[in-house]
Amino acid sequence: MMLEELRHTVWEASIALPKKRLVTATSGNVSARDKESGLVVIKPSGYEFEKLKPEHLLVLNSKGTIVEGNLKPSVDTATHIYVYNHRPDIHSIIHTHSPYATSFAVLGETIPMSLTTLAMEFGTPIPVSDFALIGGEEIGREIVNKIGTCPAILMRNHGVFTLGSNVQAALKAALMLEEAAQTMHYAMLRGKVTELPANIIAQSFKFYQEEYGQRGA
Amino acid sequence: MMLEELRHTVWEASIALPKKRLVTATSGNVSARDKESGLVVIKPSGYEFEKLKPEHLLVLNSKGTIVEGNLKPSVDTATHIYVYNHRPDIHSIIHTHSPYATSFAVLGETIPMSLTTLAMEFGTPIPVSDFALIGGEEIGREIVNKIGTCPAILMRNHGVFTLGSNVQAALKAALMLEEAAQTMHYAMLRGKVTELPANIIAQSFKFYQEEYGQRGA
Amino acid sequence: MMLEELRHTVWEASIALPKKRLVTATSGNVSARDKESGLVVIKPSGYEFEKLKPEHLLVLNSKGTIVEGNLKPSVDTATHIYVYNHRPDIHSIIHTHSPYATSFAVLGETIPMSLTTLAMEFGTPIPVSDFALIGGEEIGREIVNKIGTCPAILMRNHGVFTLGSNVQAALKAALMLEEAAQTMHYAMLRGKVTELPANIIAQSFKFYQEEYGQRGA
Amino acid sequence: MMLEELRHTVWEASIALPKKRLVTATSGNVSARDKESGLVVIKPSGYEFEKLKPEHLLVLNSKGTIVEGNLKPSVDTATHIYVYNHRPDIHSIIHTHSPYATSFAVLGETIPMSLTTLAMEFGTPIPVSDFALIGGEEIGREIVNKIGTCPAILMRNHGVFTLGSNVQAALKAALMLEEAAQTMHYAMLRGKVTELPANIIAQSFKFYQEEYGQRGA
Repeated sequence: MMLEELRHTVWEASIALPKKRLVTATSGNVSARDKESGLVVIKPSGYEFEKLKPEHLLVLNSKGTIVEGNLKPSVDTATHIYVYNHRPDIHSIIHTHSPYATSFAVLGETIPMSLTTLAMEFGTPIPVSDFALIGGEEIGREIVNKIGTCPAILMRNHGVFTLGSNVQAALKAALMLEEAAQTMHYAMLRGKVTELPANIIAQSFKFYQEEYGQRGA
Repeated sequence: MMLEELRHTVWEASIALPKKRLVTATSGNVSARDKESGLVVIKPSGYEFEKLKPEHLLVLNSKGTIVEGNLKPSVDTATHIYVYNHRPDIHSIIHTHSPYATSFAVLGETIPMSLTTLAMEFGTPIPVSDFALIGGEEIGREIVNKIGTCPAILMRNHGVFTLGSNVQAALKAALMLEEAAQTMHYAMLRGKVTELPANIIAQSFKFYQEEYGQRGA
Repeated sequence: MMLEELRHTVWEASIALPKKRLVTATSGNVSARDKESGLVVIKPSGYEFEKLKPEHLLVLNSKGTIVEGNLKPSVDTATHIYVYNHRPDIHSIIHTHSPYATSFAVLGETIPMSLTTLAMEFGTPIPVSDFALIGGEEIGREIVNKIGTCPAILMRNHGVFTLGSNVQAALKAALMLEEAAQTMHYAMLRGKVTELPANIIAQSFKFYQEEYGQRGA
Repeated sequence: MMLEELRHTVWEASIALPKKRLVTATSGNVSARDKESGLVVIKPSGYEFEKLKPEHLLVLNSKGTIVEGNLKPSVDTATHIYVYNHRPDIHSIIHTHSPYATSFAVLGETIPMSLTTLAMEFGTPIPVSDFALIGGEEIGREIVNKIGTCPAILMRNHGVFTLGSNVQAALKAALMLEEAAQTMHYAMLRGKVTELPANIIAQSFKFYQEEYGQRGA
């Protein structure tokens, strides 16, 4: 029952990715880990988002063995499993090729911390990984080694991974990252940007984590 | 009854923001002040626009005390209340992070007055604020001190605030500002732009205020 | 009856403008002239496209006198009437602020003829007008004086006007111009563009006018 | 019966082109060749995608003679037929003017291989053709001579052609090419991009062809 809800939530976030222009065609994926059973729900490989239904999603255990579903899981499955096994605090992972953020990943540069959105949502510059091959645990290892406390990482020459304590948090990080990358791209083309002072970033991040949204209500 | 209508109008403008690509995820907000009672209707904090319903909106008095609603109001509430208390002519405030306009806010530069749209809708260069922390009245003070007669202000390293005598006017200012910022961004990347002469701007603004639309019909 | 059809066609093209991202909020307008009666159907001033219905459109005679409708006509009405009175071959006029094309109008430069789309649809560089004030016949005079055989003109510091023998032709010109401006903008930012040779442009334009579409079928 | 399915598939991909912003107005086209009969289904010339129905599509034999349908076929028909006759492995051709990819075609430059998407989907730099006139076999000859093993080619000063063993493959190539061109455009504006090493490209391409998707499932 709980798992059916998680399946639905992963499906909802999956079909949101192309609508929000974070992915194209079959690229990108969403997974989530059930807090009680530890089972992971993930997108099948190379599946068009527009044809995806909740029942197409795969369920795997923490060793990556399929426990439900007949389709082949995402080629990024080993990476998702690796991250879940090394980050007990994380229960959702989203991978996109969102164009503005990915342009920073192509250049191997982070996004200057010149926006309150970046300060509040991320609190720290978005890390940039080294290049890692797709298909095994390599990307997972890069994420675990480089992401630190940030909910997002720019995967070199590839795209974006975001982590969250739930699917909504991982999706929000993916959306905010692309919006900030877009805005900063425009600013950087027209002039020299200056970053917010470290104390402003720290204060903004703290405020956002403690006061924003309905969590404390 | 009147307040129910205002609640509906604020809700309609709120859900228009992501559709018009002025905000992403939960960012940004819309408020309006009832002309008779002085009560303010505002969006709850960190609420997804796509899940927002009119009944989720908060109603506050001029001291910022909640008089209707169970959710936590926007973290920008103190700023909205501050502006309403200092600007009796203003009955709606909209806050966005629209990317093209915000890129000007990142650089701390205004948008050159090279478009009839800017001359007619705004009549004056869009002011740019100093940096102000989110969460209290600081942003409100920057708005009141810097916005003058303009219906929009670029909030440094942050986003956009627009003010209007009603919700439609504040929303229109937000839309026109982003369109003008987008067009000017493209032009500025390719060449040197020249501004319209001051008398053309004044004449265009006057014409637009007096002749445009169905007001005088 | 014929006029009701024209009213519907003008309405359809009007609501297509914001959907195709050629206009924002209430900007821009569509008109058409009935071939038999010479009556002109045009959008009311400052009307939101999303609230526009066919019955809101105005009908005017060739002197600009309203013969049907209670709303105030577009502030560009005198310009539309002027063009119809000087161009018997033209039966529809569309005005947009489409951002990529308008960025060329801001710089007062035409779009280099480096695309088959420009050669085939327009056959000649898009003319650029001098600055003209909104509200009277001035823009109409600029159009008539500068547009020549081209179906589009870039109105300096303002936007775009397209002319056609019918609404579909004027709308197509507006769409193709924006697409070509967008593509050329990207190319011009990355490198030096070269124009197609004059004989290729002439041959492409002739082919397109004679062979493309279902006209001769 | 089989042909009716193919007609539906071509129609579905055709109406996807404007929705995915790969074409504007009536530009671009989709065709497919039936594997058994060798008959080719193609879009009528200059037809608005939004008014297109499956029954409007033309069916032609390998000589380009119409065997079903009353409309005039696409002006690119001779090119599609030429490619099918020279490439027995290809059963679908898609032509777009997608703006980011076409901006590379304007400059006559390929897209640097700096993205895993380019390595995996294409495996080789996208070829750029010489200029070819529209209307006959010239474009087809350029495609056959220059495309090699790549599923896409940038047609100089014109647009994009993608080839596939079926409609889904040709459409996916068109989508991935535009996304990669968009991302690389942004990166190239901000800095100097470096390409992935040849062995990484080869390994990524092989992995994607062999492991990605549900083909082997």
